[in-house]
Amino acid sequence: MKTYNQMGLIGCGLMGGSLALALKQARVVKSVVGYSKSPSTTARAKAKGVIDLEAKSAMQACAGSDLIVVAVPVSATGATFKSIRQFVQSNVLTLDVGSTKQDVVKNAEKFLGWNAQYFVPAHPITGKEVSGVDHAEAGLYRGSNVVLTPTPATDLDKVQDAQALWAAVGARVHVMSPSEHDAIMAGVSHLPHLVAFAFMNGLLSQSDYSAMVKLAGPGFRDFTRIAAGDPVLWRDVLLANRTEVMGQLRQLVLSMQAFQKALHDQDGDALEQLIKKASKARNEWRS
Amino acid sequence: MKTYNQMGLIGCGLMGGSLALALKQARVVKSVVGYSKSPSTTARAKAKGVIDLEAKSAMQACAGSDLIVVAVPVSATGATFKSIRQFVQSNVLTLDVGSTKQDVVKNAEKFLGWNAQYFVPAHPITGKEVSGVDHAEAGLYRGSNVVLTPTPATDLDKVQDAQALWAAVGARVHVMSPSEHDAIMAGVSHLPHLVAFAFMNGLLSQSDYSAMVKLAGPGFRDFTRIAAGDPVLWRDVLLANRTEVMGQLRQLVLSMQAFQKALHDQDGDALEQLIKKASKARNEWRS
Repeated sequence: MKTYNQMGLIGCGLMGGSLALALKQARVVKSVVGYSKSPSTTARAKAKGVIDLEAKSAMQACAGSDLIVVAVPVSATGATFKSIRQFVQSNVLTLDVGSTKQDVVKNAEKFLGWNAQYFVPAHPITGKEVSGVDHAEAGLYRGSNVVLTPTPATDLDKVQDAQALWAAVGARVHVMSPSEHDAIMAGVSHLPHLVAFAFMNGLLSQSDYSAMVKLAGPGFRDFTRIAAGDPVLWRDVLLANRTEVMGQLRQLVLSMQAFQKALHDQDGDALEQLIKKASKARNEWRS
Repeated sequence: MKTYNQMGLIGCGLMGGSLALALKQARVVKSVVGYSKSPSTTARAKAKGVIDLEAKSAMQACAGSDLIVVAVPVSATGATFKSIRQFVQSNVLTLDVGSTKQDVVKNAEKFLGWNAQYFVPAHPITGKEVSGVDHAEAGLYRGSNVVLTPTPATDLDKVQDAQALWAAVGARVHVMSPSEHDAIMAGVSHLPHLVAFAFMNGLLSQSDYSAMVKLAGPGFRDFTRIAAGDPVLWRDVLLANRTEVMGQLRQLVLSMQAFQKALHDQDGDALEQLIKKASKARNEWRS
């Protein structure tokens, strides 16, 4: 398969750092030049062997790279594209790893112009509650789903190269439009995060919060795990995908109202049917 | 510590079966006589060594027992108390394992009358998505929280015996009133279940459900794990604790509206503060 002499990594966090490790382990990439906004992050990435060379700027990370990976918070994608636009060329594969795609594509078109065709938007659907290069690991993408969201303008060879690259680190690769991606993610990822955050805040507003969470069991633990997510990352994701997220939120409220009505009416049959439907679907998921 | 010659187990499911195994392993109980509504369950419990003798009725399981454990669905508690009332006596410790407590106490007072004082309502806060005696294990209660909810009428010696019994199987024992228990559980357990069920139903109502759940990742997996719960069990729990659950649901809706407003106003600062509060609380839980 196609290999790369030099990967320019912009953003040496959990996602970017793990991809660098995975691509080197798979011998898809020979060496990695990395840049992070915080110099101490870049230094730690170097010390951990995640990157081979420290760059002083995003531009320096891109110079001479035949693979560019933009792994910054989604809100920083536009500014990053702006600073590296001269390096996004036909002989270079450029990827991102952002959780929302319509806004990323809009920024690519705005700041990369004609050369946005050589950029393949990507969203690896994985992660941990913890972030940062210290948690980066080569196996992060093994078995995970990765969605590529090319536009009609995207170079087809680049899409194929991106598919091969993600497959090489063990991911299952899907291709769909940016809007389809964002609609799906609003439902299965962004809304659950919003609800988990709101649920924690609902408990916190009650006077017996401490007594409550002291008795919280494994159901609470799993249901709220994603509430521990990074505030800035999730602020950006929810804002970037706000229209879809608000639509999903309305859907959930409707769905909760059916439960509210069954409880209010003490209608055991209706309640059982509602739960049965959900339980069946969840039991059949990936089984 | 106090030991028991014979445990009469009514309901040989996951919770009752695991308690039988744990109490025998801890040498707190010598032998177990078990009864389940379904004869095939009772037979499987015998074959698995969860019980030592099969009883043909709840009464037969209680005859000669100095420990009685009622481990039936909460909706069957009243009928069970009615059928065994003659065996709930001062020389016998009687427990249940139900997830709601005010309704159980009400049924105890109604059907056991004066002898309700020898019954110690108990809720072990643990479980699995799977139910049934086949999943019973001696270690289920190790490290879990167990709440005892005696009333002012409950015999104090019996409360102490129940505390010792649950401590012997490795549980952390808490004592509080039935209403305090139900209020807490509505917040940290019953509401999350209701929301997880409603969330699955909200997705199911959308035409691209299959495409959505195909791309669902680890966040979805954990957030919805409890949606796989048993429909009859959860129907009963939600109905039994409906007033508290509806109160918690209103609280969550308020909390979700704060997110909705921040998204609508595109107010990044407000959104970040909301997420930060939730994330901090979740990160500090049990750490």
